[in-house]
This record gives sequence, structure tokens and C-alpha cells, in this order.
Amino acid sequence: MSGNSNQTRQVSRDKLKAILAEREKLKLTTRKNIEDLPEGIQEITDISRDEGMKRIEEIFRKVFVETINAGTPNLRVPSRSANNVIYDEESDLLLLGENYTDRKWDDISTVKKFTAQLRVLQIIHELLEQNIHGSKREVFYTDVSLFEDQNRGSDPLIEDCAVMLGTYRKNIHVTANDRGLVVGRLSYTDHGDLIDCTKQGSSGKNVNPMQDHIQNMESDAEFILLVEKQAAFLRLAEDKFYERYPCIILTGSGQPNVATRIFLRRMSHNLQLPVLAVMDSDPFGLDILRVYGLGSKALSYESYELATPNIQWLGVRPSDLDKYNLPQNTRLPMSKMDINRARQMMEERFVKIRPDWTKELKLMIETKQKAEIQALASRGIKFFTDEYLPTKIETGDWV
Amino acid sequence: MSGNSNQTRQVSRDKLKAILAEREKLKLTTRKNIEDLPEGIQEITDISRDEGMKRIEEIFRKVFVETINAGTPNLRVPSRSANNVIYDEESDLLLLGENYTDRKWDDISTVKKFTAQLRVLQIIHELLEQNIHGSKREVFYTDVSLFEDQNRGSDPLIEDCAVMLGTYRKNIHVTANDRGLVVGRLSYTDHGDLIDCTKQGSSGKNVNPMQDHIQNMESDAEFILLVEKQAAFLRLAEDKFYERYPCIILTGSGQPNVATRIFLRRMSHNLQLPVLAVMDSDPFGLDILRVYGLGSKALSYESYELATPNIQWLGVRPSDLDKYNLPQNTRLPMSKMDINRARQMMEERFVKIRPDWTKELKLMIETKQKAEIQALASRGIKFFTDEYLPTKIETGDWV
Repeated sequence: MSGNSNQTRQVSRDKLKAILAEREKLKLTTRKNIEDLPEGIQEITDISRDEGMKRIEEIFRKVFVETINAGTPNLRVPSRSANNVIYDEESDLLLLGENYTDRKWDDISTVKKFTAQLRVLQIIHELLEQNIHGSKREVFYTDVSLFEDQNRGSDPLIEDCAVMLGTYRKNIHVTANDRGLVVGRLSYTDHGDLIDCTKQGSSGKNVNPMQDHIQNMESDAEFILLVEKQAAFLRLAEDKFYERYPCIILTGSGQPNVATRIFLRRMSHNLQLPVLAVMDSDPFGLDILRVYGLGSKALSYESYELATPNIQWLGVRPSDLDKYNLPQNTRLPMSKMDINRARQMMEERFVKIRPDWTKELKLMIETKQKAEIQALASRGIKFFTDEYLPTKIETGDWV
Repeated sequence: MSGNSNQTRQVSRDKLKAILAEREKLKLTTRKNIEDLPEGIQEITDISRDEGMKRIEEIFRKVFVETINAGTPNLRVPSRSANNVIYDEESDLLLLGENYTDRKWDDISTVKKFTAQLRVLQIIHELLEQNIHGSKREVFYTDVSLFEDQNRGSDPLIEDCAVMLGTYRKNIHVTANDRGLVVGRLSYTDHGDLIDCTKQGSSGKNVNPMQDHIQNMESDAEFILLVEKQAAFLRLAEDKFYERYPCIILTGSGQPNVATRIFLRRMSHNLQLPVLAVMDSDPFGLDILRVYGLGSKALSYESYELATPNIQWLGVRPSDLDKYNLPQNTRLPMSKMDINRARQMMEERFVKIRPDWTKELKLMIETKQKAEIQALASRGIKFFTDEYLPTKIETGDWV
């Protein structure tokens, strides 16, 4: 796969190995068993199509029995509200707690959601039975008058269904739009087709939103380079950066969708590769890094499946701005909202346990300056690939 | 490439051939010569990297000579404002007229734009010289204090540079983000890599924003299926619809970017394939169809390169709503703005010369109903691929 391996440059191998050793301590690889779950955490696991259908049928049977026995069926749905989201320090993840919400048929405030929830379960059963995937939008359109609104109506019910079934959204065959791109030293099969990511042209390969079609990952890379923005990704893909440094390059084009997060986790996990992240130097960039690394609050019930632990922050870090002589006019002043957001982040546990991140955030707040990855273009269009990244990778400059 | 050609179904071949015959009449294939341009139209042609650099150097030389001779250099920039956009009936395209704007160095109102314009030309020269591509965002970051704002500052100057050089944006090596996807009976080379679009897994291949890397297109398809939404595209890709009907399937995921439009034009033009479009049944869907087919007003100077003439409107047409029994609750009421937009469209020349489109628009306005492609999911999740499209394609039901 690496046709140009003789061109491969020096990487900071010891520091890369240290990442994996660190990750071992988080004991994440074994954490998929119920007995390993921290206390008070909702159990979410991978299930087969058949198991998914069976669980849906069980719910319908329960509703049926409750209806004929008492006339008052009830759906117990794990609560996905913020106060049920727990940061688990030991695994370094955001996880879903064990609070429930009841949706009763004989309660005027919940009867509509009760009905709509059953309808979504029925649609998912159909998708699983036919072994096809539907989009969130299609689910909405199967019954517009019932769901009324996609964002407030059917979308949250789809997430709820996944939690109710104790599984991840990918296992219920509902997809969102596709925005991830990958390139570099990776091959896999997709729906039976062999995809070689070193032979995908200059814009890489789109990440399939139907991740269950992806199998047989192989790689001779030494690390994964995760970049926030698509523009930076395209620069690296066009330059075939992966020929000079043995890596796989991935972007979610901003805030990543679920498929991109699953894909990163699978690459990092199955291939045992450390992840180095290149984000904008602003609170939003760090927030995206958090979503990749720890999980999002909205989908905390899926953190085990979606989050990639122990991602390293390579850049662009607030301290890089001076270190790499970014001209003052490419640094942007932070808004009040930016600064508040950065301050809130300083209070989060996952930042507090990382002294180097805390230091960078402090510097950001002090200087009140932010900078996008593309700001490095002010030092020349190829500065990013020819100087900035090589220096970082060769000296192990990440935290 | 078509491993399953024995499964291929009947298509309405005579009606497909008629599209190409119709297109011949537009004489578009020969229209790339200057003498073929209608009167009063700006000349825009494909140029090489060397020619691009040469033209930029000429501009700098002219500015230099004007400066030492008179001290008052001036940049004449073709005007891209709406009143300089002309609908050319003979070619069925929106084209740029010959009006100019002057940007003078000794005029307080234009000196800043004059300077910024020269800076953008210099950056483009650098991109061409190094034979790499930059994003609009990167161009902005090369000189933030000069451009001040990307959308109002550097982006329009980038478009201006292309027109000034008398060429298309792809030839100045500046890219936007990537949103197009393709799947089906097509192969091509991308940056030297062979891409077979029947072997791209279940989500197809992303359309490269650097279209000049795409070469050697080959296909045994009989038509191109152009779909507005990514969700509809993924349904078709997962179903391998192109195995049942000999086609290439393309989506721009909503309003298409420049690369997707170039790609469609090249496929349709080089492979001589008719294009059948599946859009939402609303004024916005029809507007996207117009952008693919005639060009956009903002980029009218590129219509020759970007627009694919004579695209057929397969669906979802307002008359389909009753014809295919879409339940009332999946049809959405049109807002006042929607209706105004539809009325404005009725007044456009390109609609007026298409009586069947006029009829459909009239029906839309009368019923005040719109519907998205995904609304077809209300008739069952596979209704779109198993019934709606086959019926349409086999009976030649497009206008």
C-alpha cells in the first residue's frame, strides 16, 4: 500500500507509543462488558439485526400485554437530558446515566410521544427486516402528520429508540448526511468493494454513513492525523502527505457526523493507532476535539461506540501563534461569547485533568486571540504541510 | 464494468435519444469558439497554467507601465452584477455581458479594491506556479488585514480574477468545499488513480473539488440520473440502482458546488449522455435544476463551462403528487414566499420556452402544495427505487 515508503520521514515514535500505553490505562478495550461499566451507567452495546428486531418485537408484546391487562401501556425511555450525562474520569468519556422518562398512553402530556415512538420503532423494524438504511429525513416523511416536525419530532425519537434498544444508532439503520473524508495508508471493504485509500485521487474517499458496510480494515500507518477542516484535508491529500509520513488522514469537515466518529474510533481501535488532532485555535475547535475524544452530550449514550479516547492535541494551539510567528493580522480577536465559552471549558473535568490543555486555554483567554488552521497560509500556502506539520510530528510536539 | 448487465431493465431509449437530438439544435458543442459567441457576451475560455501565469504577468506589466508613465494605474474588471447577466435563448444559457467596472489606484473609492485585486492575482500566480490548489479560505488568510472579510472581501475578488483572465475558476486553482457524490457506470482517473464508480461501496465516490485532476472518463451508461438530495442518492447507491438501469447517479447534496456542476457537464458532454433530474417539487428544487442546466446568475461568466444544457425534469413534478397518490399529509403548504418565487419563475424566459414546465409550475401555484423527494417514502421506503423511478424511466415520463 505504501508505494513510496523509502520517502517516509522521521516520526517521533517514542511519543507515539506513549499514547497507546496511556490509553491502555483507560482500560477502554475491555470496557464493552457489562461488568466493566462504572456504576449508574446505561448499558449500550452492539447488537445484530436479528437482535434489534427481537427487541422491538418484545417492546410491542409488552405494550400489547399491558393494554389488554390494564389498558395503560407505558414506554420507559432512558433520559437523554443533560442532567443524565455523566463524565466518567476512569474511562475519560461522557456517558449516559440511568434516569428514565415514562411515556404513557393514558397521560394526555405523553400520549402523542407514546404513539410516535411506537411508529418509529415500527419503521426501524422495517429497515432492519429489509436490511436497508433510511435517512432521518425519510423516517420523518413516513408519517408527517404524526411527527409534525423533523428536528423536534422524529429526530429525537430516533435517538430514543436506539437507547431503548440498548444499542447505537448505526445498528438501527438510520443515517444522517455524509461529510467525512479519508485518505492515506488504509484499505477496507465497503459493501464488498475493496477501497484503497492511497488510490482515491486528490480529494480522498468519502466516509460511508452506513458504517456497518465497512469491514476488513488494514493499514501500515503509524498514526492518524485528524483535521478539523476540509480545506486543510484537501491540502494534505493533494500533497500526498501520507507518503512522506506514514499516516491516515481524516476530516469530519467541521463538527463531525456520527459515521465519521465511528470510523475514527474503529481505525484507532482496530489498527491500534494513536490520533493527532489539528483543530482551529479557538473554543469551537477544542469543542470539536472533545466530541471526537470524549463524546457529545446529545449522544452520550453512544460514547462507548463513538468516542476515541486519548486524542492528542497537535495544533493549532494558542502557544503556536507566537512559536510559529503567525502575523498579528491573521489572529482574530475573541468575542465575549468565545471568552465565556473558553472559561466554561476550563471548568470541565476533562480539561482539568489535562494540565497542558489548561495552560493552552489560559493563554487563549489571556491573549484574547484565536486563529484558524488556514491562518498558517499567511506564512506561505505550503507552510502547513512543508514546515508546520513536519516539525510537530518529528519533535513530538503535541499535548 | 457492468457485471450485471443481464439484469438491466428496459429504458425508454427513443425518448433518451430525442434529448440528444434536441441538444444538437442548441449548437452548444461548437460554441466554444469566439466567433460562435452571441454578440455582447464576455469571452471566457479554458486556458493552461502557463497561459494563466502569462495573463497575470501581463496585467502586472500593464499596471507597472501605467504607474511609471502617468502614475494612475487602472484595472478593468468585467462586471458580474445582475444587470450584466444575459439569458441567451439560442444556447439556453445565462451568460455574462460586456460591461466593465474600473478599479483605479488614484480613486479613493476603489484604491483598496485595486490593491486587494492585485494581491489575489499574485496569490493565484503562486498557486499556478507551484501547481497546487488553494481554498477560498486560504486565499483570505494570506492577507487578512487587506481583505478584512472573506465573503465580502476576498471571495468576490477571486471570481473577479477568473473573469479578468477570461477563464473559469477551476483554471485559477482555487477550490470551495466538496459536496458532490457519484456512483454507477463510470470510471475515470483522478490524480493518476483509476476510480471505478461501480466499486465505491454503498455511499459512492465524492466529487473532487479539483476537477482538473479528473481525466479519461469512460462509461457504458445510457443516461445520468441527477438527484437533488444526498439521502435519495444514498438510497439509490445502496440499492445499486445502476445495475438494474444502465446509468450514472450524481448528487450535489442540495445547491451544487462548482466542481459538481463541472463534473456533470463533463460527463454529459464527453460521454454524450442525456440527464434526467429528480428534484424536490418546490420552487427551490426547480431553482437548483436551473443552476445545473442554465447556470447561476452569480457565476454566469462560467455558464459555458458549468451548465449542462437540456436537462430533463423527471420528477418530483407537481403533477406526480396526485398521479402517484402521495398522501395529503406528506404534501407541505407553500409559504407566501414560495408562491412568489414560483410566480417569478413563470416569468423567466427559460421557463416560458418550456410549455411543460410552465404547466407544472401553474399546477404548483394553484394547489399551493410542495413535496420533497423523501415524501415518496410515505408510500414505503423502497417505493422510490422499486416503483416510482422504474415507471418513470420505462415510460419516458419526463419533460
